[in-house]
Amino acid sequence: MRPDDTEGTTLAGDGAAALAWVERYLERVGELPVLARVEPGKIRASLPAHPPEKGEPFANVLRDLDDVLLPGLTHWQSPRFFAYFATCASEPAILAELLAAGLNNVGILWRTSPALQELEELTLAWLAELFGLPAGWHGQLEDGASLSTLAALAAARHARPGHEVVVCSEHSHSSVEKACRLLGLEIRKVPADEEFRLRPDALDLTGACAVVATVGTTSTTSVDPVAPIADACEREGAWLHVDAAYAGSAMVCPELRWAFDGVERADSVVVNPHKWLLTAQGCSALWTRRPDALREAFSLVPEYLRTPDDVSSFSEYGPALGRGFRALQLWAVLRCFGREGLQASIRTAVALAESFESWVREEPGWELSAPRPFSVVCFRRDASDETNEELLGRVNARGDVFLSHTKLQGRYVLRLAVGNLRTTEDDVRTAWDVLREEAARVGS
Amino acid sequence: MRPDDTEGTTLAGDGAAALAWVERYLERVGELPVLARVEPGKIRASLPAHPPEKGEPFANVLRDLDDVLLPGLTHWQSPRFFAYFATCASEPAILAELLAAGLNNVGILWRTSPALQELEELTLAWLAELFGLPAGWHGQLEDGASLSTLAALAAARHARPGHEVVVCSEHSHSSVEKACRLLGLEIRKVPADEEFRLRPDALDLTGACAVVATVGTTSTTSVDPVAPIADACEREGAWLHVDAAYAGSAMVCPELRWAFDGVERADSVVVNPHKWLLTAQGCSALWTRRPDALREAFSLVPEYLRTPDDVSSFSEYGPALGRGFRALQLWAVLRCFGREGLQASIRTAVALAESFESWVREEPGWELSAPRPFSVVCFRRDASDETNEELLGRVNARGDVFLSHTKLQGRYVLRLAVGNLRTTEDDVRTAWDVLREEAARVGS
Repeated sequence: MRPDDTEGTTLAGDGAAALAWVERYLERVGELPVLARVEPGKIRASLPAHPPEKGEPFANVLRDLDDVLLPGLTHWQSPRFFAYFATCASEPAILAELLAAGLNNVGILWRTSPALQELEELTLAWLAELFGLPAGWHGQLEDGASLSTLAALAAARHARPGHEVVVCSEHSHSSVEKACRLLGLEIRKVPADEEFRLRPDALDLTGACAVVATVGTTSTTSVDPVAPIADACEREGAWLHVDAAYAGSAMVCPELRWAFDGVERADSVVVNPHKWLLTAQGCSALWTRRPDALREAFSLVPEYLRTPDDVSSFSEYGPALGRGFRALQLWAVLRCFGREGLQASIRTAVALAESFESWVREEPGWELSAPRPFSVVCFRRDASDETNEELLGRVNARGDVFLSHTKLQGRYVLRLAVGNLRTTEDDVRTAWDVLREEAARVGS
Repeated sequence: MRPDDTEGTTLAGDGAAALAWVERYLERVGELPVLARVEPGKIRASLPAHPPEKGEPFANVLRDLDDVLLPGLTHWQSPRFFAYFATCASEPAILAELLAAGLNNVGILWRTSPALQELEELTLAWLAELFGLPAGWHGQLEDGASLSTLAALAAARHARPGHEVVVCSEHSHSSVEKACRLLGLEIRKVPADEEFRLRPDALDLTGACAVVATVGTTSTTSVDPVAPIADACEREGAWLHVDAAYAGSAMVCPELRWAFDGVERADSVVVNPHKWLLTAQGCSALWTRRPDALREAFSLVPEYLRTPDDVSSFSEYGPALGRGFRALQLWAVLRCFGREGLQASIRTAVALAESFESWVREEPGWELSAPRPFSVVCFRRDASDETNEELLGRVNARGDVFLSHTKLQGRYVLRLAVGNLRTTEDDVRTAWDVLREEAARVGS
């Protein structure tokens, strides 16, 4: 009767093989070239152009994962992945994702999965407590910060009709501009100071429905001064959205919480645990102290979703109708690491970045390009942009490490981001050794 | 050095336990009450109000999953889940989700995971072929149909400036209205005919940038006549978006492909494999024959994402910047089932719905409320709305099955949706038996 009799993927047999594959992958990921070394189109061309007529054993999937896909993967789980923001799906997160897929719960209404909804509420409250955010805020999980920011700005637009400008710094994330485009809002970028922070004295809130302050900008992880921005927003009646997608996770450490000064006055805040809090991709936390504004912007309850339960559901607070059991991995991570484990993870990453920063500072011919509040170091060879760009290309081509770049004040700057649980001082030292070796070859 | 030494979740030990948990869950899910039987707030109140200070063993997560969460889960994986659209995360999908979490690849640019991007391109081409869609369309995966439709309508708006109306039937999904709200577009709902299909003669495309035609509406799975709608769109220059979130998966069966007549002329199409094609939540396929319009609506490439690779990336075609490795589960499902396995799964569901429909038709005191093109039966007791509502409440409270409802022509109607791979004729028979038993108790 069951149509899958012919292929018969089993959790016992194939599941054990898949689990062993992941275990072995994480053991050897440090030995693989971090940045994929393939030409565009190569992976696709190595796979059949047409779908199979008959079912195949799951073992074929694992085989092709090794033989065909692996060379085309950039290893985000590598301890020497230092590009963008270094992330890490920890073991509790990986296993919780397995459980979530097995349960395949869909949160639409409360009754479609009370546990999904209530665990999401609870873990968001736990996370707010860990970050020192006010108790009682409404929290929800979105797939990524782009959607969290979209939801927040939709609420802001709704809350202030006739005001169609969003103000942010020139260093704010591209997702702010993307959300504005979708929402038909105008974006006004305010200059930053010499340390890449939004200048409150340059804020012009004419016609503004919202200001986005960034705690941990993408290029340098600079921290916009939230308190004076909150003053301005309160004066003008604009919504304050804080984008702490990366740096928010560091707020689990009291010594770094200066960066959240004033955030308690925000209307909404986004932090991505999938960036620096050991969860797998698909876990962005959004809080608001004005849930009614989100609900008014999003709520639509068609007849087939009306139930006798007197409970509102997350589908009324964001762009999606259904949601996966994202809270499960967040719950597993918060429990298996605890506050102390999370703090240790953040502190290790910050200490490693600090070591790297000190090596750059002390080495002639190199320079630091921005202050380093967290675990990202911006630096460059004291040479032309072309030299720095060539250097980065050579470093990444070697495969030992993967770094990315940005531009600051018109100059090409390298970035080293630490964030993987498996990264040790040896790994960061390797990055520095490779950078110096290749710099010697490039010359200046 | 590693901060997780104290808790030490291991893939070998804890992973085997998690896998065994899922295996056992799927074995016993048919014995659990399908709809959760808890009061709102109960699950949350059963868990600690504050996050743990120290890490705990992963075994505690599994323990609480059983002891605390399980009673609060509505079992979407149950063979007797007949509500909304019945879904099914199959074994290949579940295991691929484990692999995806272990790899934790993030698709931002092509280089951040060439295999992720190219596998997404390939599986979408495979899927298009399986559904009889034209070759060569651009395809991408979004988290859900709400986002796919949002992306399509954003492109439509961009492609036709000054036209700010989206036209759809009164039976279109609420996500169309939600997307319009976000995009600042007006929605114009056109009447449906007596079989709940959009009436092309009632189309008024004045000021319209787009029309949404639905192949498989949410209430009755009715099929809007795409070909005459395409005629009108071509005449007026409006974008045609086809929402086939549910029924699109059935197009793998040639005998059902009449429902896609004219879809080859659409500008964009969405189908959710996570609804009826055996993948886990988070897998919505969007195709367009006008990828440039999506790109123009969404592309933003900040400096830190500029690379020497001459390849565009999915982040330029949708609301998100980064994406998870969603294609992996789709690939695993298409391979492990093959065209034949997918067809068998669809045909089984349709045949079971057909059986149920025949039982309703033949039983005095019951009536069918809409034609049944696929695997959803709309029916009711020949009695008052209140009686039908009470009947549904009693049936769902028993726990044997879970059905949902809708309103058609102002009347309360029950829906039975088949879609789980594990559903057998016995399960559908149970639903019918329970319905008749409870109907006898409610009276009429």
